[in-house]
Amino acid sequence: MRTVELVEKKRDGGRLTAAEIAFLVDGYTKGDIPDYQMAAFCMAVVWRGMDMRETADLTAAMVATGERLDLRRFGRVVDKHSTGGVGDKTTLVVAPLVAACGLPVAKMSGRGLGFSGGTLDKLESIAGYRVDLSTQEFLAQLGRIGIVVTGQTADLAPADGKLYALRDATGTVPAIPLIASSIMSKKIAAGANAVVLDVKVGRGAFMKTPAEARRLARTMVAIGKAHGLAVTCELTDMDQPLGRAVGNSLEVAEAIATLRGGGPPDLVALARIAGAEMLLLGGRARDRAGAVRRIDRAIADGSGLAKLRALVVAQGGDQRMIDDPGRLPRAPHVEMLRASRTAYVRRIAADAVGNASVRLGAGREKKGDPIDHRTGIVVHAKIGARVERGAVFAEVHHAGRPADAAAIEQVRDAFAWSARPVARPKLVLGRVAG
Amino acid sequence: MRTVELVEKKRDGGRLTAAEIAFLVDGYTKGDIPDYQMAAFCMAVVWRGMDMRETADLTAAMVATGERLDLRRFGRVVDKHSTGGVGDKTTLVVAPLVAACGLPVAKMSGRGLGFSGGTLDKLESIAGYRVDLSTQEFLAQLGRIGIVVTGQTADLAPADGKLYALRDATGTVPAIPLIASSIMSKKIAAGANAVVLDVKVGRGAFMKTPAEARRLARTMVAIGKAHGLAVTCELTDMDQPLGRAVGNSLEVAEAIATLRGGGPPDLVALARIAGAEMLLLGGRARDRAGAVRRIDRAIADGSGLAKLRALVVAQGGDQRMIDDPGRLPRAPHVEMLRASRTAYVRRIAADAVGNASVRLGAGREKKGDPIDHRTGIVVHAKIGARVERGAVFAEVHHAGRPADAAAIEQVRDAFAWSARPVARPKLVLGRVAG
Repeated sequence: MRTVELVEKKRDGGRLTAAEIAFLVDGYTKGDIPDYQMAAFCMAVVWRGMDMRETADLTAAMVATGERLDLRRFGRVVDKHSTGGVGDKTTLVVAPLVAACGLPVAKMSGRGLGFSGGTLDKLESIAGYRVDLSTQEFLAQLGRIGIVVTGQTADLAPADGKLYALRDATGTVPAIPLIASSIMSKKIAAGANAVVLDVKVGRGAFMKTPAEARRLARTMVAIGKAHGLAVTCELTDMDQPLGRAVGNSLEVAEAIATLRGGGPPDLVALARIAGAEMLLLGGRARDRAGAVRRIDRAIADGSGLAKLRALVVAQGGDQRMIDDPGRLPRAPHVEMLRASRTAYVRRIAADAVGNASVRLGAGREKKGDPIDHRTGIVVHAKIGARVERGAVFAEVHHAGRPADAAAIEQVRDAFAWSARPVARPKLVLGRVAG
Repeated sequence: MRTVELVEKKRDGGRLTAAEIAFLVDGYTKGDIPDYQMAAFCMAVVWRGMDMRETADLTAAMVATGERLDLRRFGRVVDKHSTGGVGDKTTLVVAPLVAACGLPVAKMSGRGLGFSGGTLDKLESIAGYRVDLSTQEFLAQLGRIGIVVTGQTADLAPADGKLYALRDATGTVPAIPLIASSIMSKKIAAGANAVVLDVKVGRGAFMKTPAEARRLARTMVAIGKAHGLAVTCELTDMDQPLGRAVGNSLEVAEAIATLRGGGPPDLVALARIAGAEMLLLGGRARDRAGAVRRIDRAIADGSGLAKLRALVVAQGGDQRMIDDPGRLPRAPHVEMLRASRTAYVRRIAADAVGNASVRLGAGREKKGDPIDHRTGIVVHAKIGARVERGAVFAEVHHAGRPADAAAIEQVRDAFAWSARPVARPKLVLGRVAG
């Protein structure tokens, strides 16, 4: 097989066989196929796409480049994945709730990039929390307390890491088959039997329209099916930030508040939906109503919070920060943004808020940049809220650097106002299941 | 400027500014921009194209990466370029004829690749012929005898060489803006005032349809205009091989025969058209009829052949091979292909004949492969010819290796036959001028 001929085949709109796809993925991972041929291939895929069969074969080829964890001894293990957004701390809430309901949660999370935050960064706000468990530690902890949230252990789908870095540098990120296979290859390699996906839609998400999001969702569900995984996928709004907090410490504090029963309505709603879905796929509830009741109970009886504490303790974190979120790292300065007139919030540009958080140091422009866990934004008034003149609609937590002034203005400009009442946007835009 | 953003701009169908194009071409040539980003960019150009302004800017940026020869001391210098095909030895005929008419011909030629032959390979059939003149030798010879045919001297448009190698390996050759800028950047850097182009069309050419060929022709003429060059372009048939001979020695022999007045009709016709066009652009004839008469005279009076001899002598070649083409390298075996029934030739697949010549050793699969100057094919019956049962319709000159049998069969299969008369195809399919 000649690589250039496979590139040409895709360029001309052809469909690659499983063997051809495996040749490319394997050769690229081993270094036999150079970056430039793979870059041209990826651009041809952005152009021509891949059908479901090709996409499933691509996923299988990526899984085959590394180890695949075997979690069968734990019974059903359900994974959860969000395509990422601004203020999305759902994992910090849902994983403990579901684990508290008796379903093992083995979650490998990622770091933030651009305006999109990452669960690992958030957890590292907690002093001492380790995200670099070995595979043995991972499995032992899962058996002992039924919950792990760490970075990728072992050598799972190494093709994906190499390919993602290439795509990032070559303008070939936005292709549904490449995005879907990247996500699903890691889920499959990580050993899950079932996956609950949350595809974010809107200006603070990678998918800007419900139509694209639905295509991505369908593709991931189909990949799951082809690999024997049960997959369900919610499409949820990311036009405005999720919950109120954006920034690492601030989001951990909000997650704790939610597990204590005091969460913002949208985050609570999403946690109930995703948690119930996980319990259903994991066979821990007979029907959706029963599953939701179990999630509600795990909030009400404090068992979810206790599970988060157990997770933090198991991974070396300072549990006092869970018991008293006032101990989490705090920015030295808080700028209060106040309404100049009484009005309704018409828009909160999630991308602008996310980019402001990056400027404040809460996120990173490129991989490997250091971050400031203390900084971020708290949104007091979400879309549809009425704000009185002079009332605070947002807080900006910053380090007091000269550059922070621009970030503060960016947050202010992210809000648009209306003199007349504004409807609250729908949180859930759709659902795709296998 | 960030390279990835320029890739994304083209990916999304945007038009790049001159500064953006220069940034890419310059950065790539210097090694600041890696192959993989350029590969993705090239695929995006295959997909989205470039408009005339972008294409002219791309050409200018490529010219600017190297030297530009100054040939003004020689007055008007007209270059000639063919996009390449099977049996295309026109340069070997036209260059001496035009030079014999007093118009300096400074020609930098290339090597063959795939089924397409190259003038340098053909000339190297002549023992001793040098194709590696220095710039000084090039200029001195042009002043002394008014003709040079050599490989690229000096550092002309180095971006093109690097880019072409990348495109060849990444399936990004077939994009009109990339093809046109590649050809024209070298012509402009080589110092010509005017260029006569021959875009080949058909199964033995890179352009398979007259429509594509016309687009390429228009693009090159427009680039010439943008750079102050007079450019005319013929579109000519390459569905069947040009002339009779395919293969290096064989083609040199056919060129000599043509300069002696015994050439095959299509090659003679093309030489008259291209030669007259060059004389007109070079101001050596008042009108087309007069230009054609001068070309005819240079054949009839032997001055064209004398100019070829002078060229060969000047570049170190063995002139006895010109005076007696029987001295050119000859293959040890000749297989005669005979008609199994009386019929008319309906098709001679030029690509198949070209590929067979590569198999015989007359061409190369990839750059740097050695070639056998002796081998090739002689077509006795062209499309439309009537061949009696048992008569020879083609000869295959081969080295007697076991693998040659397959090449012989490939030549046989390249011919299709008809019991009824077949019209001879048109040689000239169109003309584009500025």
